[in-house]
Amino acid sequence: MAAMTTRESLAAVDAADPLARHRDAFVLPAGVIYLDGNSLGPLPRATPGRLAEVVEREWGEGLIRSWNAAGWIDGPRRVGAKIATLVGAEADEVMVTDSTSVNLFKLLAAALRLNPGRSVILSEPENFPTDLYVAQGLVELLGGRARLRLEPPERLAAGLTADTAVVLLTHVSYRSGAVHDMAALTAAAHDAGALVLWDLSHSVGALPVDLGKAGADLAVGCGYKYLNGGPGAPAFLYVAERHHAGFHQPITGWLGHAEPFAFESGYRPAPGLARALAGTPPILSLAALDVGVDTVLAADPAALRAKSIALGDLFIELVEARAAGHGLALLSPREAARRGSQVSFRHPHAYPLMQALIARGVIGDFRAPDILRFGLAPLYLRRVDVWDAVEALVEVLEKRAWDRPEFLTRATVT
Amino acid sequence: MAAMTTRESLAAVDAADPLARHRDAFVLPAGVIYLDGNSLGPLPRATPGRLAEVVEREWGEGLIRSWNAAGWIDGPRRVGAKIATLVGAEADEVMVTDSTSVNLFKLLAAALRLNPGRSVILSEPENFPTDLYVAQGLVELLGGRARLRLEPPERLAAGLTADTAVVLLTHVSYRSGAVHDMAALTAAAHDAGALVLWDLSHSVGALPVDLGKAGADLAVGCGYKYLNGGPGAPAFLYVAERHHAGFHQPITGWLGHAEPFAFESGYRPAPGLARALAGTPPILSLAALDVGVDTVLAADPAALRAKSIALGDLFIELVEARAAGHGLALLSPREAARRGSQVSFRHPHAYPLMQALIARGVIGDFRAPDILRFGLAPLYLRRVDVWDAVEALVEVLEKRAWDRPEFLTRATVT
Repeated sequence: MAAMTTRESLAAVDAADPLARHRDAFVLPAGVIYLDGNSLGPLPRATPGRLAEVVEREWGEGLIRSWNAAGWIDGPRRVGAKIATLVGAEADEVMVTDSTSVNLFKLLAAALRLNPGRSVILSEPENFPTDLYVAQGLVELLGGRARLRLEPPERLAAGLTADTAVVLLTHVSYRSGAVHDMAALTAAAHDAGALVLWDLSHSVGALPVDLGKAGADLAVGCGYKYLNGGPGAPAFLYVAERHHAGFHQPITGWLGHAEPFAFESGYRPAPGLARALAGTPPILSLAALDVGVDTVLAADPAALRAKSIALGDLFIELVEARAAGHGLALLSPREAARRGSQVSFRHPHAYPLMQALIARGVIGDFRAPDILRFGLAPLYLRRVDVWDAVEALVEVLEKRAWDRPEFLTRATVT
Repeated sequence: MAAMTTRESLAAVDAADPLARHRDAFVLPAGVIYLDGNSLGPLPRATPGRLAEVVEREWGEGLIRSWNAAGWIDGPRRVGAKIATLVGAEADEVMVTDSTSVNLFKLLAAALRLNPGRSVILSEPENFPTDLYVAQGLVELLGGRARLRLEPPERLAAGLTADTAVVLLTHVSYRSGAVHDMAALTAAAHDAGALVLWDLSHSVGALPVDLGKAGADLAVGCGYKYLNGGPGAPAFLYVAERHHAGFHQPITGWLGHAEPFAFESGYRPAPGLARALAGTPPILSLAALDVGVDTVLAADPAALRAKSIALGDLFIELVEARAAGHGLALLSPREAARRGSQVSFRHPHAYPLMQALIARGVIGDFRAPDILRFGLAPLYLRRVDVWDAVEALVEVLEKRAWDRPEFLTRATVT
C-alpha cells in the first residue's frame, strides 16, 4: 500500500477529514511540522484574546473583586468539570490544581491512607520518571511506613501481593506510546485489594479515557500536552466519588479548607474534592488551560481516536517503506489498539538526528538514550504533515545530515 | 497636626514625593482607591505586553523550543534571583516555584530533617491560617514523628524548648500588620538549637527584609501581593546557602532532579536549591510575576519604607481625628517601626462597613471576625488617596451607609 500512497492522495484524504477545521483553531508557524504536541501543545488562536481579557479587564479593572465577580475562585472546579468529560468522570470528581508532580504526591499519600494496613506502592521501572521520583520522595518521608516496588509490565499482575496498597501506572508510555489496558489492570488490582492511580498525562486529549467505566480510583494528568493549556499549565487530579469521604491529602493549604475565608486556626477539610486544593491557583495559566481544554472538547472523541490511529499507521508504514536500511527500529506497538497518539523509533544516532530534523522545521523530540519520538496530535495534524515529516527524515538519513558538530552538542532541554 | 492637614497640603507633599512616578507603572481604574494591594497587587502597565510576547512569540512561534531559546527552564532561578535582592538573600538562595502552601510543606519537612532528633514545629495561634494548616497536615502525615505547638507571641521565647526543631512565623501579621523582630527571634531560636522558617508573604515588596543579616534559615513568600505578580502568581522559597547540602524536600518531582532530561528511574537531587523544584512551572503566571517584581526593584527600598510609614501614620491620624466615636479600634501597632504596610481597625460591623466602602470605590478588605484591613502600598498610593479613603469611611459611618441588606450578605471571598 505504501507504494501507492502519494502526497496528492493524502491531501485528498485530508480534504475530506471531518476534523480538518480544528486545525484552524491553532497558531501553527509557517515552515514547521509540529510533532511535539505530546510535550507542549500549540497555541490556540483564542488564547491571546482570552488572556488579554483576564489580565486587562478581570485583573486590571476588577482587581481583588474578580475572585468573586469573574469566578476565579471557582476555576479549579469549573475547568476540572470540563476535563471530567474527557476522562469519563463526573463533574465533581476532577479538580485543576498544582503540577502533576505535586498531585501525584497528594494522591499517593491519600491512597496509602485509603488502604490502611498495606504499605507497597507498585509501579513499573519505565513509568514516567517523575511518577517514580515522587513515590520515592514520599516513601523516604514516611520512613518505613511505605515502600516502592517496581515490576516490569508483564509481571505487574504477579506483583499484586497482599501488601500492595496502590498501583501507580501511566496510561500511555511517554517512551513507546504503549497503552495499558486500564480496565483489566484496574480490575486485577481491585481483585488483589489494591487501589490504582492512573497518570493520564500522555493520553488525555488524544485518546478516549474512561475512568468511570474502568472503575479507576485515582488519577492525575497534565494540562500542557494534548490539552493545549500552555507551558507549565496547571495539572488535574481525579478521585472517584466513592472515595471522597475517606480522601485526605497531606498538603492541607487554605483553599482546601471547609471555610477558607473564616481564617480559623484549625484545618477542616472542605466537603468533596475541594479538599484536594492547597494554595491559590495561578489564574493566568489556568485561563489558558481553560481555552486549551475547549479546543479538545470541540472535537468528536471517536473521530480523534480514529484519526490518531490513521496518522500513526501511516507514519510507521511510510518510515518502514522509505527509510529501510537506515537503522530505525520501531519502539511503539505496531498494533494500533495498543498504541497512543505517538510513534517512537530507536536509532543509534537519535539525538543528532532529531536536531537535524528540528533544523528543517520537523519538530519531534529525543528521549534518552536513543529514542526519536513523534507526537501525532489528531486535532491539528494532517496526513500531508506526516508525509512531509517522513520526507525530511529520509533526506536527513540518506544525506547523513545529522552528522554535524552543531547537532551533536546537547542542549539542556531536548 | 490633623487639624492642620488638608487635602491640598497632602497633594503638595505628593507632588514632591520621589516615588510619585512609580504610580504610572500601574493600571489603576478610575474611581477606585485601591487599598488591597496586600491581597492582590494591581496590574503593572508592562504586564499585558510582556504576556502577549510570551504567549504569541515564545509559545506560539517558538513552541517547545522556547524551553531553551526563551529561557523558560531558567525562570524559577532567574526570577528567584531578582526576589533575592528584595529579601537580603544571595541569588542562589531563592527559587520561584509552586504556591506558598506547597512551599511551606516542602520547607517544614526539610527543616525537620535538617534538625534531627527534634520533633516540634513551634508557631503562634494567630499565624496566617495556611501556615498552621500545612503544618497540621505534615504532622498528621508523619504520624507521631512531629508535633505542632502554638504559643502566643509573648511566650514564643519561652516555648523554645530542647525539642523544638523549627519555628514557623509570619514576618508581618495578615491581621494586625504587626512586624516580628526577625533578627531577635532568629537569634533566640538559634540559641535554643532551633531553625526558623519565615513567611514573608505580607512583607516582601513593601518593607525591607534582610534574611541574610538576620541569619534566617528558611523562608517562603507570596508573589501576588506586594510583588504585583497577578492572581495566584507562583510563590518563592529561600534556603540559606549553609543548609543547601543537607536540604532535602519530599516532593521530589522531575525538575528537582540532577538531570531532569536524562529520564533516569532513580531520583538524584539537583545540586543547590534546584532540588526545591518539583513539577513544571506555570510559565505564563511566572512571566507576569517577573514583571511585577520589576516594579518593586525599580524603587528605592528605603524610600518605600519611609513612605509606607508616612501613609500609615497619616491614615491612623486622620481616622482617629475624623471618625472618633464611631466604634473603630486600632488593631495595628501605633508605633510605625512595629507596623508593616497595612493598617487594621476593629469594628463591630466591619463586614458591611467594608462592603459599603467597596461600593464607593474604596477597596480594602474584611478579615474575620471584625477586622477592616487597609493595605497602604507605597509604590502607587498617594497621600490624597489616604485622605479620600478616610473621607469615604467617615461618610459611611456618619450616614450608617453600611446598614443595608446588600452589604450584610456575605460573598464567598471578601
